[in-house]
Amino acid sequence: MKVIIVGGVAGGASCAARLRRLDENAEILMVERGPYVSYANCGLPYHVGDVIEKESSLLVANEELFRAHFAVDVRTNCEAIAVSPDKKTVDLRDLVTGEVTTHPYDKLVLSPGAAAVHPPLPGIDLPGIFHVKTVPDAREIHEWLEKGTAFLSGMDRYSGFQTLRPKTRAVVVGGGFIGIEMAENLVQRGFEVTLLQKPDQVLKPLDREFARVVEAFMRSHGVNVMHGDRVVGFKQAEHGAISVETDSGKTYVGDVVILAIGVRPETTLAKMAGLAIGKLGGIRVDEHMRTSNPDIFAVGDAVEVKDYVTGEWSLIPLAGPANRQGRIAADVIAGRDSRYRGTQGTSIIGLFGAAVAWVGPSERTLNEIGDTDYEKIYIYPNSHAGYYPQARPIAMKVIFRRSDGRLLSVQALGQDGVDKRVSVLAAMIQMGATVYDLEESELCYAPQFGSAKDPVNFAGMVAADVLRGDMPLSHWNTARNEFLLDVREPMELAVESVPGALNIPLGQLRERLDELPRDREIHVFCRSSQRAYYATRILVQNGFDAKTVSGGMLSLAHNYLFGTGGGAEPGKAVEPVEAKEEKKPMVAPAR
Amino acid sequence: MKVIIVGGVAGGASCAARLRRLDENAEILMVERGPYVSYANCGLPYHVGDVIEKESSLLVANEELFRAHFAVDVRTNCEAIAVSPDKKTVDLRDLVTGEVTTHPYDKLVLSPGAAAVHPPLPGIDLPGIFHVKTVPDAREIHEWLEKGTAFLSGMDRYSGFQTLRPKTRAVVVGGGFIGIEMAENLVQRGFEVTLLQKPDQVLKPLDREFARVVEAFMRSHGVNVMHGDRVVGFKQAEHGAISVETDSGKTYVGDVVILAIGVRPETTLAKMAGLAIGKLGGIRVDEHMRTSNPDIFAVGDAVEVKDYVTGEWSLIPLAGPANRQGRIAADVIAGRDSRYRGTQGTSIIGLFGAAVAWVGPSERTLNEIGDTDYEKIYIYPNSHAGYYPQARPIAMKVIFRRSDGRLLSVQALGQDGVDKRVSVLAAMIQMGATVYDLEESELCYAPQFGSAKDPVNFAGMVAADVLRGDMPLSHWNTARNEFLLDVREPMELAVESVPGALNIPLGQLRERLDELPRDREIHVFCRSSQRAYYATRILVQNGFDAKTVSGGMLSLAHNYLFGTGGGAEPGKAVEPVEAKEEKKPMVAPAR
Repeated sequence: MKVIIVGGVAGGASCAARLRRLDENAEILMVERGPYVSYANCGLPYHVGDVIEKESSLLVANEELFRAHFAVDVRTNCEAIAVSPDKKTVDLRDLVTGEVTTHPYDKLVLSPGAAAVHPPLPGIDLPGIFHVKTVPDAREIHEWLEKGTAFLSGMDRYSGFQTLRPKTRAVVVGGGFIGIEMAENLVQRGFEVTLLQKPDQVLKPLDREFARVVEAFMRSHGVNVMHGDRVVGFKQAEHGAISVETDSGKTYVGDVVILAIGVRPETTLAKMAGLAIGKLGGIRVDEHMRTSNPDIFAVGDAVEVKDYVTGEWSLIPLAGPANRQGRIAADVIAGRDSRYRGTQGTSIIGLFGAAVAWVGPSERTLNEIGDTDYEKIYIYPNSHAGYYPQARPIAMKVIFRRSDGRLLSVQALGQDGVDKRVSVLAAMIQMGATVYDLEESELCYAPQFGSAKDPVNFAGMVAADVLRGDMPLSHWNTARNEFLLDVREPMELAVESVPGALNIPLGQLRERLDELPRDREIHVFCRSSQRAYYATRILVQNGFDAKTVSGGMLSLAHNYLFGTGGGAEPGKAVEPVEAKEEKKPMVAPAR
Repeated sequence: MKVIIVGGVAGGASCAARLRRLDENAEILMVERGPYVSYANCGLPYHVGDVIEKESSLLVANEELFRAHFAVDVRTNCEAIAVSPDKKTVDLRDLVTGEVTTHPYDKLVLSPGAAAVHPPLPGIDLPGIFHVKTVPDAREIHEWLEKGTAFLSGMDRYSGFQTLRPKTRAVVVGGGFIGIEMAENLVQRGFEVTLLQKPDQVLKPLDREFARVVEAFMRSHGVNVMHGDRVVGFKQAEHGAISVETDSGKTYVGDVVILAIGVRPETTLAKMAGLAIGKLGGIRVDEHMRTSNPDIFAVGDAVEVKDYVTGEWSLIPLAGPANRQGRIAADVIAGRDSRYRGTQGTSIIGLFGAAVAWVGPSERTLNEIGDTDYEKIYIYPNSHAGYYPQARPIAMKVIFRRSDGRLLSVQALGQDGVDKRVSVLAAMIQMGATVYDLEESELCYAPQFGSAKDPVNFAGMVAADVLRGDMPLSHWNTARNEFLLDVREPMELAVESVPGALNIPLGQLRERLDELPRDREIHVFCRSSQRAYYATRILVQNGFDAKTVSGGMLSLAHNYLFGTGGGAEPGKAVEPVEAKEEKKPMVAPAR
């Protein structure tokens, strides 16, 4: 059996290694257009930032290793330029010699990845504008950053000599994974960084109010985040810099410009082979990773996969799924009945020592697909026991099915323990857990690692309280117009308060019930919702129509939590951020 | 309805708060023998170590808060001394005034906890010998440590004055949670610490070979770990120190002695009430936390619970389960059908910046209950992508059902990411996951947080390879006597090698098959098992009878991993540690 694998990074390399383990006799040819196979593309931004110092660290495996350990015929700098599904052949071009050869296959695996979006804008090919897709990309950026900027100072004008000054300004276009990671790494290298993007928020998989917290956090670390403004072109500016021109007429000058607008599945070969392409532009495959042609498989960033939770098709360009898909294609080629279960889209991004992570559909996605059978809570548990030093709050939005309690998704941001909680919740979603299961979870607890009630338990308890009817819930967008009861202590109100809310500290509530209306909904809040929940229980049992405002003051103003400048208001329609920032925050930052 | 709750720490306090939320009208009386309710006993060792500086940090909630927020009648320094189940009354003694009063109840909840074992050894009540159970205990230790030791120097002998020198030597008796945490905290305070214990290993829930790694790690951080020697008494030594005498005739002198021999369920009241007691000495309860008397409930460290995995009764004195049990008792008292699902025993201990954690039954426990339907693997994945700085290996022993692949348990040790992986695996065990589910798990991945193949995925892949028959497995205890094939590179053998093993580097294996015997089992190893697995695949497909030695060199010598002094040899009967330490390790430590 002859198997040709097109693409030698995550999906292709995994497929080749797995196939060899299952079949010593298969003839395996793996071709890669670039100079390296199996490199760590997730590490590229950190190599630019000098966190990963050596380029060689990024090269996880090389051609020789594939040949020696796996007896795979690996060809780098080799592009598959044509496929003939009738003849079952692939044409390969050696990018060094230009030679084209034709190779027969029994099975073909396409793992071509996704190409960086590179719109035909004026000036987009100016020197100093880069993508971050490959090891050579990172090397070029590195060299460009280190070269310094030609700069004619006053003295130079007389002498006629050019001096070099360090490059200091960067413009990153795009607020996805690569854009944000590049922004952080360039800040760490001392650059003034502007992050520009067309959509009205960073990180599209997040809900907007959560993205607002991320943006505020990035701004507090020096990134000038601008969104809702489209780049229309690039111009050469003084001293070798580039001027980035936008729709709104503004320009941003960078000594380096990073394009991280997004990626698009590579489907040239797939289309040539007449394979079915999905609505999102990715190669359509079945659960065996088989395309519409039974002898052609496709894996990785180029394919559309089923979302594990919603069942909708989606494009999830992540390394973990690509690896698993490669293994599954190899299994199936070797005659096994392996199936891909779909992708959860579990993701995390480091953010100046903090992390933002998520798994499962956002509220916006649920709204888009018309799914209304859900409820959401905002919680702010500590990363570990509050009495042990350096506990940090984790802001979490948890979404679950109203009808059966099934956990659907979580978004989380914090400076400690975010990866753990989102990983645990991803595992729970995988296993079809309900919020009632989360209540009972038994995670590692010692005071430096968690709490006797871990954030995971806490999420389950609050959600279950909602579903059991013990905690009728409200959110700020509606609560704002209702009767508001603030059950915090007067001391706390002195720091921050909500205009118009009645204050009765929880400890006095039982004695002061007659101050409350019996003909209106009472929306109760405190700092985080805990005391509000207790108060709600008291009120409901005394015949009042009470609801707990989810997340309390912390949902109203995340700046309180993370010490960032801008507030975020869950559930409220958010104005363009430039306008919004001029507004005084409703509450003062704590401390 | 009048409810009396005996014990106001984890289980009792949770029960009181929950019950009030469910029933505004219940009359709730909570009594606590000690001076504080709801304190953080898990933090006590860290308070002694000055990691948690203020004693007040340990007081999570106080009497006033329980009264104000929950309208609970809280009495501290108040002991329940008698219960009459026929009359449904409890006698309470005020420990300050001595007054005894009788109180009727409709429902009684026992949450008395577990008492520190305090054997009647000679000298056990000498000053300077302490338990670590309560806030006053920690306060006394603190004061004792700070007071200094009376010490007559030569000069003092002339002058007649005593000077004080700092206390410097500590003996900790017991190698469980508290013993190990106290040992670490005393080392951090500059003490020379000896940890003595009667069993032949620390941390009984771990398998011995895993405990050996923990002990080696503790020794490398300065703790003199001694086991297999029983304390027989204490004597006053010079300068106010205490001499700890052992069975073997050795004595250990400490300026302070910590007794952390274990805890025993408090069952005095339960026995007085005629409640059923289990074989392990804990109060027997049903899944509603109801004792053999329908009006009496019991929760927390005093009760026996069903092990979630084995179904066996067990004593699990942990805060998380106690809290959940308290909530469930409250639910049931309030008329709800809540059930306790059993305890997984998920645990973690910090260890000089590292952590050791586990969930589910050890191999020893499975052997003890006669369960042979399991397989085990040893793996050593990195905590995050190897190409990103500061990745640390995690030593993991994973046990799973041979018949159906169900995940049973894990033990793990490492300097990064242990809490996350054991928490995820605990969640997977809770949900009844198989190792095939672990293969497909989609956890948070960015290079600083994990790997595209996370340790959780890796555990699943290796275990599934074993169960699918792709990786016939062996362990060092049997492999030692078989034909051994080492597929590492000659460079690696120069650092460490196994006498008698044939070396054929993986890359040469396909060409050198004729050097291998066709009539013997071939046990293949490398550093971690990865190349050995590849080699096994090659051999098996070429008709050889080959097996992979699980964990490879890393299982043979954990010192290689953690830079500790002593080796650990999984599966091998281990000699008493004193004798063993004199033996030269079979392999040299790396670097």
